[in-house]
Amino acid sequence: MYVTQTLRRAVQTGGNRTATIFGTRRRTWLEFQDRVARLAGALLDLGVQAEDRVAILSLNSDRYLEYLYAAAWAGAACNPVNIRLAPPEIAYTLDDSASQILFIDDTYAKLLPALRPLMKTVRHVVFIGDGALPEGCLDYEQLIVSHPPVADADAGGDALAGLFYTGGTTGKSKGVMLTHDNVVFNALNMVPVQDFNEHSVYLHAAPMFHLADLANTFAVTMAGATHCVVPRFEVDPVLAILQDEKVTHSILVPTMINMLLASGKIPQYDLSNFRRLLYGASPMPEALLLEAMRQLPTVQLTQAYGQTEAAPLVTFLPFEHHKGATLRSAGRAVYGVEVAILDAEDHAVESGTVGEICARGANVMRGYWHLEEQTRNTLRNGWLHTGDVGYMDEQGFVFIVDRAKDMIISGGENIFSVEVEGAIYQHPAVQECAVIGIPSDQWGEMVHAVVVPKAGASVTGDEIIAHCRALIAGYKLPRSVQIRSEPLPLSGAGKILKTELRNPFWEGRARSVN
Amino acid sequence: MYVTQTLRRAVQTGGNRTATIFGTRRRTWLEFQDRVARLAGALLDLGVQAEDRVAILSLNSDRYLEYLYAAAWAGAACNPVNIRLAPPEIAYTLDDSASQILFIDDTYAKLLPALRPLMKTVRHVVFIGDGALPEGCLDYEQLIVSHPPVADADAGGDALAGLFYTGGTTGKSKGVMLTHDNVVFNALNMVPVQDFNEHSVYLHAAPMFHLADLANTFAVTMAGATHCVVPRFEVDPVLAILQDEKVTHSILVPTMINMLLASGKIPQYDLSNFRRLLYGASPMPEALLLEAMRQLPTVQLTQAYGQTEAAPLVTFLPFEHHKGATLRSAGRAVYGVEVAILDAEDHAVESGTVGEICARGANVMRGYWHLEEQTRNTLRNGWLHTGDVGYMDEQGFVFIVDRAKDMIISGGENIFSVEVEGAIYQHPAVQECAVIGIPSDQWGEMVHAVVVPKAGASVTGDEIIAHCRALIAGYKLPRSVQIRSEPLPLSGAGKILKTELRNPFWEGRARSVN
Repeated sequence: MYVTQTLRRAVQTGGNRTATIFGTRRRTWLEFQDRVARLAGALLDLGVQAEDRVAILSLNSDRYLEYLYAAAWAGAACNPVNIRLAPPEIAYTLDDSASQILFIDDTYAKLLPALRPLMKTVRHVVFIGDGALPEGCLDYEQLIVSHPPVADADAGGDALAGLFYTGGTTGKSKGVMLTHDNVVFNALNMVPVQDFNEHSVYLHAAPMFHLADLANTFAVTMAGATHCVVPRFEVDPVLAILQDEKVTHSILVPTMINMLLASGKIPQYDLSNFRRLLYGASPMPEALLLEAMRQLPTVQLTQAYGQTEAAPLVTFLPFEHHKGATLRSAGRAVYGVEVAILDAEDHAVESGTVGEICARGANVMRGYWHLEEQTRNTLRNGWLHTGDVGYMDEQGFVFIVDRAKDMIISGGENIFSVEVEGAIYQHPAVQECAVIGIPSDQWGEMVHAVVVPKAGASVTGDEIIAHCRALIAGYKLPRSVQIRSEPLPLSGAGKILKTELRNPFWEGRARSVN
Repeated sequence: MYVTQTLRRAVQTGGNRTATIFGTRRRTWLEFQDRVARLAGALLDLGVQAEDRVAILSLNSDRYLEYLYAAAWAGAACNPVNIRLAPPEIAYTLDDSASQILFIDDTYAKLLPALRPLMKTVRHVVFIGDGALPEGCLDYEQLIVSHPPVADADAGGDALAGLFYTGGTTGKSKGVMLTHDNVVFNALNMVPVQDFNEHSVYLHAAPMFHLADLANTFAVTMAGATHCVVPRFEVDPVLAILQDEKVTHSILVPTMINMLLASGKIPQYDLSNFRRLLYGASPMPEALLLEAMRQLPTVQLTQAYGQTEAAPLVTFLPFEHHKGATLRSAGRAVYGVEVAILDAEDHAVESGTVGEICARGANVMRGYWHLEEQTRNTLRNGWLHTGDVGYMDEQGFVFIVDRAKDMIISGGENIFSVEVEGAIYQHPAVQECAVIGIPSDQWGEMVHAVVVPKAGASVTGDEIIAHCRALIAGYKLPRSVQIRSEPLPLSGAGKILKTELRNPFWEGRARSVN
């Protein structure tokens, strides 16, 4: 399998069809391929060799897509950097991966003065913005114009397609090595999940560096569909482009969906072409899901569950199962991936028993970059260990109870933060919440809730606790509630950063997982 | 990728759902898996080791499916034998593959007296019929009952999943080696082609030994759908089961579709659940296709093109393109497979230029069994050379002009038999026809047509030639026409055997390809 096969198929089946839409800029697949082949020539000219890492730090754009394909075309590996990292964290990602070239846009070029002294391996910075060329940078369009198209390096199979750093906001970030086989196999699994075809128009609104969006990227191309790109998620521009470009598909993370729904602006737009909305990357509270189904009645909501190490798809929940008991499920194994719930000794548990969610298939990463021990541990016994805790029912529906690190152990009881959050989200005044474990001398940990009320609404901690008492067992109730007006801290992918919420409580203390 | 992963997924997502329907016999996925794991135990007990070939010679049945999965579960390779072969040809297939075990049904058990003296490697014959146990055979159900289920051997990846003999009716048959990766990758490509899901009911009416049907087998299981099986294609039983079991999907070869349409019986049945009919394995005359669309207006006709060496999918033509110029196309590359039209030096030709249809992808065979030279030649320069001649338009639609061996070279002109047949099929009195090249001292070869009139209709050779004169160029016209009352000879897969029609003309002469 080859990443570039997906591009050649798009060109072969519709070279004059629209490949990318970014603002007023549109390119056909023939134009796109020509630019990719020229940019790959520029990379080779800059000394890039097989599997060399080429990094990018940028908001979403059509050029981000060109970069991804040019890296593959040149036989190099992409290294899309998390856009929320601080300069020392960015530098760590670049150095650890030994990236030699960095693509950067207008937004992040501002960090260059801080970054330059920290970067040890980057030899060239390519500016992909539309503004003035920053000093010491190569001009992206100039590179394309000045290099003739080169032949595809024909990298594929087990060759490295990309390094994707995860967990970069807490402790040492790990580089996940994904091969061509991994990401193209994932694309083949994505096609039936999204029901992509050549008429599809996919909106990249979630950040393109993250596997939630990238999971779709190669599948969109493979199907000969159109990539529609906005720089970042913002309510009004996203609603406008969904309408104006007749977008049919997208993926959004729950915090983005929450913002769309809270805006009250959905009825102002014609979303009649918007057919399927994938959601994933973090737990979707049931109240939010029901509200999404109410406000977007013609959209087939589909859940995707996975992780970077799985390239990323593991399970999916089609729209038809968004009812009854399966509404709270993350769905069933995608067609080509095997899923099992394993105990601590890696034996499969009975249906309904909680264990670690594990996966195997051609989608599973080659390993962590230069981290043999973590690789062995995560891939032990032939299974990818996701670190997520869940159970499976008798029809194969997976229910995620929590991330292992977000589980709260209080008085010897396991309390799943996701379940408590689900109860809190049912309170009408709640916009956002996060439940974490904080230290307790008596119980080891105790349940703490951080709650952001809706605009114009107010709620007290006692009201939240009283509300939850009717929904969950007493030992799961929050013992303390913080009402907070500013939004919760988010990762680059739009996940709520519980680590940041936990840290002040745990300063100077050891938590077993963080 | 593992063949048995598709079975585990079916069990995990619906163990109590119906796996197989065969006459009055129905089994759930849990029952099916239990039987497969026991039968695999029996195979191991009989001495089968990794990649050992286990053969079957049988009409379609639920047990055929169990056999296929048991071979994979035991880590062995299946060897499904063409059901139309004569005993010496069967024996060649068994010996060449060194098959140690042969599964056989009631119909073919009658051949055992003739086969036994010819078989050199088969140590055990397992009788899978419902009649009395033939002498010297092991009883299938007894093997299952008497062996406990064993653990999956976990064979996968590049391990041999099956040996599939092709071309067995002419010259020396070649064993195509397909790996687990090959057939599971094909299944992932088939899911969007057929739009399979857990609610699908697939009818095996085409012979299960052949890749046309087998292409669907693992995809049906992967989706958790139901296998409905009839022993062989016959008009009334097929129409009855389509109605009674609410069949949603099937694959039929053009000769079978021709028989269904000619029967006039379609209106007597409720086919309202029948959603998608794949056709392929040999050229579909346009007149037949239009008639199928007329008589089956609620069925989405979908063309699949491929060959055993490609496991087998190469291109597909969705129903939406069954109009205009693309009606005559074999469609475009399936999502994961790369297709190109190459010249004799393996360079890609321009759109519209005729060349050899070539493919590459994770579906392409490991090679021909023990035939290194043919393997190298067929897989040269990284491409599978299909031996089919065609061109591609600017939207990637492939048009097959002929099998290389069926092309007629007359007076230096290439004449494509498929084109001449397409003209003849437009004559209202024609039920079946085949166009072949016969020796001509003047022209090298000349065009000869064999025509079977419809029941009750009559037509002369001169009328056929006059009819064609209005449709195709003079040099392509048949120079001689044979009107014949008996049906044309068919291969085990239902393809018209042009070789058999050609042989009498070429006796004692050399044809460059045969």
